[in-house]
Amino acid sequence: MIASQVSASNTVSLTAIAQKTRQAAQQLAGLTAADKNRAIAAIAQSLETAAAEIIAANQADCEAALADNLAKPLYGRLKLDTDKLKGAIAGVRSVAQLPDPVGQVQIHRQLDDGLILKRLTCPLGVLGVIFESRPDAVMQISSLAVKSGNGVILKGGREAVLSCQALVKAIRQGLTNAGINPAAVQLLTTREETQALLALEGYVDLIIPRGSNAFVRYVQENTRIPVLGHAEGICHLYVDQAADLDQAVNIAVDAKTDYPSACNTIETLLVHRAIAPGFLPLVAPALQARQVELRGDTAARQWLPQIQPTDEADWSTEYSDLILAIRVVDSLTAAIAHINTYGSRHTEAIVTQDEAAAAQFIAQVNAAGVFHNCSTRFADGFRYGLGAEVGISTQQMPPRGPVGLEGLVTYKYQVVGDGHIASAYAGENSKPFTHRDLT
Amino acid sequence: MIASQVSASNTVSLTAIAQKTRQAAQQLAGLTAADKNRAIAAIAQSLETAAAEIIAANQADCEAALADNLAKPLYGRLKLDTDKLKGAIAGVRSVAQLPDPVGQVQIHRQLDDGLILKRLTCPLGVLGVIFESRPDAVMQISSLAVKSGNGVILKGGREAVLSCQALVKAIRQGLTNAGINPAAVQLLTTREETQALLALEGYVDLIIPRGSNAFVRYVQENTRIPVLGHAEGICHLYVDQAADLDQAVNIAVDAKTDYPSACNTIETLLVHRAIAPGFLPLVAPALQARQVELRGDTAARQWLPQIQPTDEADWSTEYSDLILAIRVVDSLTAAIAHINTYGSRHTEAIVTQDEAAAAQFIAQVNAAGVFHNCSTRFADGFRYGLGAEVGISTQQMPPRGPVGLEGLVTYKYQVVGDGHIASAYAGENSKPFTHRDLT
Repeated sequence: MIASQVSASNTVSLTAIAQKTRQAAQQLAGLTAADKNRAIAAIAQSLETAAAEIIAANQADCEAALADNLAKPLYGRLKLDTDKLKGAIAGVRSVAQLPDPVGQVQIHRQLDDGLILKRLTCPLGVLGVIFESRPDAVMQISSLAVKSGNGVILKGGREAVLSCQALVKAIRQGLTNAGINPAAVQLLTTREETQALLALEGYVDLIIPRGSNAFVRYVQENTRIPVLGHAEGICHLYVDQAADLDQAVNIAVDAKTDYPSACNTIETLLVHRAIAPGFLPLVAPALQARQVELRGDTAARQWLPQIQPTDEADWSTEYSDLILAIRVVDSLTAAIAHINTYGSRHTEAIVTQDEAAAAQFIAQVNAAGVFHNCSTRFADGFRYGLGAEVGISTQQMPPRGPVGLEGLVTYKYQVVGDGHIASAYAGENSKPFTHRDLT
Repeated sequence: MIASQVSASNTVSLTAIAQKTRQAAQQLAGLTAADKNRAIAAIAQSLETAAAEIIAANQADCEAALADNLAKPLYGRLKLDTDKLKGAIAGVRSVAQLPDPVGQVQIHRQLDDGLILKRLTCPLGVLGVIFESRPDAVMQISSLAVKSGNGVILKGGREAVLSCQALVKAIRQGLTNAGINPAAVQLLTTREETQALLALEGYVDLIIPRGSNAFVRYVQENTRIPVLGHAEGICHLYVDQAADLDQAVNIAVDAKTDYPSACNTIETLLVHRAIAPGFLPLVAPALQARQVELRGDTAARQWLPQIQPTDEADWSTEYSDLILAIRVVDSLTAAIAHINTYGSRHTEAIVTQDEAAAAQFIAQVNAAGVFHNCSTRFADGFRYGLGAEVGISTQQMPPRGPVGLEGLVTYKYQVVGDGHIASAYAGENSKPFTHRDLT
């Protein structure tokens, strides 16, 4: 009884916050690109002014984290020193350089004399962004929200609460200085509020979870609001019978070891049976020299008898670590079937000099990214030149793969007439539509 | 216990069907536009060959429906006579004329020397389409699925089962004649299979429900697969103080009476207080002459004392009938607030000669369509020139509004290199990305 009352009262208060955010976002939605860029500059300026306060708040968070014996990698992400803050503020300023995602004309068409259709991009409305310990995410996300004309409700990690409060205070001061309603950026701090945020269907238009796979999956399973985020990155490298062996070794080492915990890192190496005798004895020592633990199926262990055997679970495991499963396949078709069965539709690569094999792989593999003769590690918004990555999606529907600012906007159809009515275009003596695209 | 066994066995058998469909769809995905158009022509030809069989099957359905005392409008939709079948086959042929939605280059960019990124549209995979009594939907949907390179699992209404079976048999024969695996088009016939279809997350990529609002809402609430469809069309016409009165009367009559049960028909007329005394006595008789029942708030009834009063429920009701609620508002802002509170984000219109008011309305109203000085009835894929409408979406995220073939495709990022690895682009002596868009 008490629990449900608490939950109800949380929901009510978050609805009010979301409505305020939406109202403030309406002002942002109407701003020109120049106005939004000025607001971003004002945010950067305000963050600089508040630097000492922010660093002090972060130090308090860090001391509490030490006392709580926070795991070392989390502590590293929590820590915000002067250099990291400077870098993040430079990142805020760089968002002003990106092209405005709002107001882009996607369709401009005459339907009839004096009846004009336009499809124009517009902001989504209110974003809900839930992230873990990194307080610098607050700055990046807020500036991307302003640039795309959206309000944003931020929920940071419990261990970063003082840092997030200091950052959001400075960001809101920056908005105020630029003449913008600071309610466009909101901060939540409790776990109960995360639950309430996920329930705000109709008030929040997109949820962006940033964190572990388990967390993203939890969010996906507990909201009816669209979610931008991928729960898993089970990526494969397939070395075809017509591969250049040196190229294949280099790509395998890069795709596994460049950043083992990244989602675009490979978990499984598929090798064509015809090339396995030549390739496996080359690639294994190169990977082992980088401390990669190899596991193999029966056929792979014929050539690499010293490695551990794989079992069925290996094919669906994202190790996020220096472990690689190796499977020998009989054909390109078998490789594609393995990938379409076990892959998470993130990024998949083939190494081959055979253009027809590459074309078949690219056509038939179902993934956001399909790569030929290069490392899966290129699957990234920055590397794609999208400007800034707001998330990576492994959904089938767009937006898919690394998503830039484009993922934070939607569109509206605008039709302008001069008293045009639809009944004139039906029945006897009906007027025809012209459907002429305008430049 | 038995129920869960039945359900489990249904799920299993549908998974097998979905996998077969996906496999067949892979062939479709690789076809050229010319091949797909030939397949569509073969389908049309096969439907013509089977016309007598289809009409006979439909007659049997119609006789059973009469015996079951099926409601008259449903019976009308079920009935497939020679003319209607000819028209539907012409519709199939017209799909071949549409531009190919697959293989469109959205991004073509050099990332570095010899490292090329392309973003190309590709089929979604497998569509699940659930429709009510109209058997002609089978032909339209199947041809759109083939054109977009997708497999499709169709679930028709129980009352149309013989018609659907005859149609799908002919369509599959057409695919076979064109050398295409007929498993790309599947038909389900029982209600239990609808449940099982909605549970096929990971096997079916998009659900398109066609039917009543209640049905679409049921589908949305009972699947985790993306749904293309709108549950409600609560559309408004706002007559501003600076409206041309004759234009406003014409548009109001068209937007309410052209097709009262359509989703883009208005349910509420909002009138600026300053123009109410002049406008209401003009528009009321024009609407009443078309048998529209008017309801009004207190202010509207000052000028139209004979009409029934509205209550709060009227503002959120889709009448789908010749009923119109009238509310007098104090300002443009109040009109926008009413629409953003009660509207279903479908289509909203303003009549005004004041360009600034129109611009504010277009910017601040949150809907898939925002119209100025024309009827909401233009919100339609055919009228927009999208070629064929596969659904209308009132979601915030794209695809939004009337959706053409574009809504049946997604995209892949393709990166082709020559041994490129990511570690070369980081750290000391790192190579820079060129990010040069190619034409």
